[in-house]
Amino acid sequence: MAKAPVLTPRADDFPRWYQDLISKAELADNGPVRGTMVIRPYGYGLWERMQQEMDARIKEAGAQNAYFPLFIPQSYLTKEAEHVEGFAPELAVVTHAGGKELEEPVVVRPTSETIVNDYFSKWIQSYRDLPLLINQWANVVRWEMRPRVFLRTTEFLWQEGHTAHATYEDARDYAAHIHEKVYADFMVNVLGIDVVLGRKTPGERFAGAVNTLTLEAMMGDGKALQMGTSHELGQNFTKAFNTRYLSREGREELVWQTSWGSSTRMVGGLIMSHGDDSGLRVPPRLAPVQAVVLAIKGDDAVLAKVHEVGDRLKAAGVRVRVDDRTDTPFGRRAVDWELKGVPVRIEVGPRDLENGTAMLARRVPGGKEPVAIESLVQLLPAVLEEDQALLLTQSRERRESRTSEVSTIGEAVEAAVAGGWARIPWVNLGEEGEAELAAHAVTVRCLVAEDGSVPGSDDAPGNVAVVARAY
Amino acid sequence: MAKAPVLTPRADDFPRWYQDLISKAELADNGPVRGTMVIRPYGYGLWERMQQEMDARIKEAGAQNAYFPLFIPQSYLTKEAEHVEGFAPELAVVTHAGGKELEEPVVVRPTSETIVNDYFSKWIQSYRDLPLLINQWANVVRWEMRPRVFLRTTEFLWQEGHTAHATYEDARDYAAHIHEKVYADFMVNVLGIDVVLGRKTPGERFAGAVNTLTLEAMMGDGKALQMGTSHELGQNFTKAFNTRYLSREGREELVWQTSWGSSTRMVGGLIMSHGDDSGLRVPPRLAPVQAVVLAIKGDDAVLAKVHEVGDRLKAAGVRVRVDDRTDTPFGRRAVDWELKGVPVRIEVGPRDLENGTAMLARRVPGGKEPVAIESLVQLLPAVLEEDQALLLTQSRERRESRTSEVSTIGEAVEAAVAGGWARIPWVNLGEEGEAELAAHAVTVRCLVAEDGSVPGSDDAPGNVAVVARAY
Repeated sequence: MAKAPVLTPRADDFPRWYQDLISKAELADNGPVRGTMVIRPYGYGLWERMQQEMDARIKEAGAQNAYFPLFIPQSYLTKEAEHVEGFAPELAVVTHAGGKELEEPVVVRPTSETIVNDYFSKWIQSYRDLPLLINQWANVVRWEMRPRVFLRTTEFLWQEGHTAHATYEDARDYAAHIHEKVYADFMVNVLGIDVVLGRKTPGERFAGAVNTLTLEAMMGDGKALQMGTSHELGQNFTKAFNTRYLSREGREELVWQTSWGSSTRMVGGLIMSHGDDSGLRVPPRLAPVQAVVLAIKGDDAVLAKVHEVGDRLKAAGVRVRVDDRTDTPFGRRAVDWELKGVPVRIEVGPRDLENGTAMLARRVPGGKEPVAIESLVQLLPAVLEEDQALLLTQSRERRESRTSEVSTIGEAVEAAVAGGWARIPWVNLGEEGEAELAAHAVTVRCLVAEDGSVPGSDDAPGNVAVVARAY
Repeated sequence: MAKAPVLTPRADDFPRWYQDLISKAELADNGPVRGTMVIRPYGYGLWERMQQEMDARIKEAGAQNAYFPLFIPQSYLTKEAEHVEGFAPELAVVTHAGGKELEEPVVVRPTSETIVNDYFSKWIQSYRDLPLLINQWANVVRWEMRPRVFLRTTEFLWQEGHTAHATYEDARDYAAHIHEKVYADFMVNVLGIDVVLGRKTPGERFAGAVNTLTLEAMMGDGKALQMGTSHELGQNFTKAFNTRYLSREGREELVWQTSWGSSTRMVGGLIMSHGDDSGLRVPPRLAPVQAVVLAIKGDDAVLAKVHEVGDRLKAAGVRVRVDDRTDTPFGRRAVDWELKGVPVRIEVGPRDLENGTAMLARRVPGGKEPVAIESLVQLLPAVLEEDQALLLTQSRERRESRTSEVSTIGEAVEAAVAGGWARIPWVNLGEEGEAELAAHAVTVRCLVAEDGSVPGSDDAPGNVAVVARAY
């Protein structure tokens, strides 16, 4: 008799599979206020590892962490016209505090460009203060009409970078540097997700930016997910907040700015990129738990051995957990670790001990085989790197096999509605074409240059639009 | 001619000195919404180091990080009577969001006991799920009437632990474990601050707790600062939220809980404990920058040498920064690093190079002397540990020399108003005595047992009340 599936199969109902996985792998719950989420320890562990890896890259790029207030005076938002228009429908507003009605309502930050500029204009005096490179890890709030855990939540956790530069070129190059050396490097080499680096069309840009760079990934159902964005803000906020510096030549000049963000949405991207019908598959370089050592039964020799193996792997630098909860049936625990996507399970029972072996179960390629316990420390690093590489390969192959080269808008819609991506010359589409796509809930995810690089302008000859349905 | 002081001297105006230091050392600014703060990179660097050290200890104590929503339905707060009474005057309330008035207003979390219990009651089924040990790093909001940066701010950053246990004893012991092994260990051994561990009187307890353990430190002006608290919540929230488990014996039982918190207020405590008239003094084990290598002038040999010394110290595990900004006068940079309290400055100029020496300036004991550049890597670890120890000694000596043993309420008030602490037998004071103290803005900071340990009950014989004015 076939076992009942633990999760709704992806092919039956992808959104339901996603919700099932999040619930059964204990990643998150819905919060009591519509659109909010409770991130449970295992889900938060994934986010903590993302933070560590990203934070190291952000610091390597020269930015320093700081913290700006959650509450922004409503008047700040209105200073930059496009920006307020972009965010007005999503704002949460505090009208009462300390037992009284406030004289001026305060907005819960949807992003911090406005308040950051207020302080940049105080801190920046001369060219010596530039570039000013700031990042913050924080929660932000955007009231969501169609919330979905990790992907679109009323409150989410993120990092937002904010920088000021003396010249246009310096700001442009820094936005590109973050795009490539922080975001792409992290997503490809740690998350194991194949991302397409491109440029947003004017219609898809961040409210207040002059150029938005994006990273788009294909999910398991062929839809796209925007994994992060890096913006050139030009002088839009600078002008609104009068953020000036005294140049080396003694002139008052407006600074040039960037901002860039990535969020807990990446956890959703991780699930939908690598998850399968048995649960999540976590890339080893990210995994908070890379290997779990399970005692199949609770006899003393087995318990001693799993702790010994755990200690040795830990000493060898593997992020390991020992599962000695033998009052819970082994099968149930094995399924739980599979759901959570821990890359490697090392299962030890009384019979294995006799042979000096353990069962090595690999989550990414699947399958298990007996290995000598003595060889584990030597074996594991290579196994983990192999699995890391395999996830990236699978992610790339999916994108390649499900992307069509097309030349008409009709073909692009057809490919997207069928659950894939289409690449169409931007000259064949244009802003009018975008409106046609929108009627089918299809969007231009980004523009890429003919050679696959990030285009220097919207209408560079040879620009290709990548078109898809998206989360 | 004497130089004008960089800061208002502490003896002239301690609160003004505190504000001056925070501003000139670039730790924080006031936010635009009353009572909020902007934490600048150097101030945030101190907080990041606090987080790292605390987080490691929290994980060592078995707790896992998670994240609960910022927004709490107003109805949750009212479920526990004492709790809502304690927090009602400080709440910030969102009434409008997504362009509409909300059907039920939501509260911006002042703390998370209520929402945590809502989920604990879902997650906890059986004794196997206990203890459940959760921590979160988050921002919270309490509308402040008399805000002061880091000490009392409308929004602050903190960690809040929330745990559920099968028995009263287990919860009690865990609250005590956090108090001693996480908070006291961190404050004494990393912050270098001498703290008194004690128990709050019933009148000073957290709203909703049955017992609050506290850590009280004496600031430079003799006032007290509560540096952190660990609460036994008993079954107050458990009853309100019906948080039950099935015991090993098959009975439905209410769980027992703890909660515990420490915040960015510790940055204020650091400043007021160790700061002097020249600025902050950061204990080396905490310091984000333990040593700065300064180029006195910008010639090539000097610049090469400061980078070489910086690289060698970094390789030796010292958190080091190189200051080669020779377009800013050396004197000004030296004063800046002094203000920021970096423990060690290594100053290198052309003349030093000839002698193979550098000036080693030590912020904690003060003074500078030439040392052989070759000896720095070997010298520095011992210097840093010496300075760490000296700060703790100074903190302890201040508390000891400014604490009086008294027997009457009048004497206790006199000692506190004069800028010190008083120790008075609790039997000579009692809850009526607390009311008398309050008339002089003096409070019981905590109760300690005769032998200096934390008392097991409020009225254990020999309990001594530590009495002071407090921030």
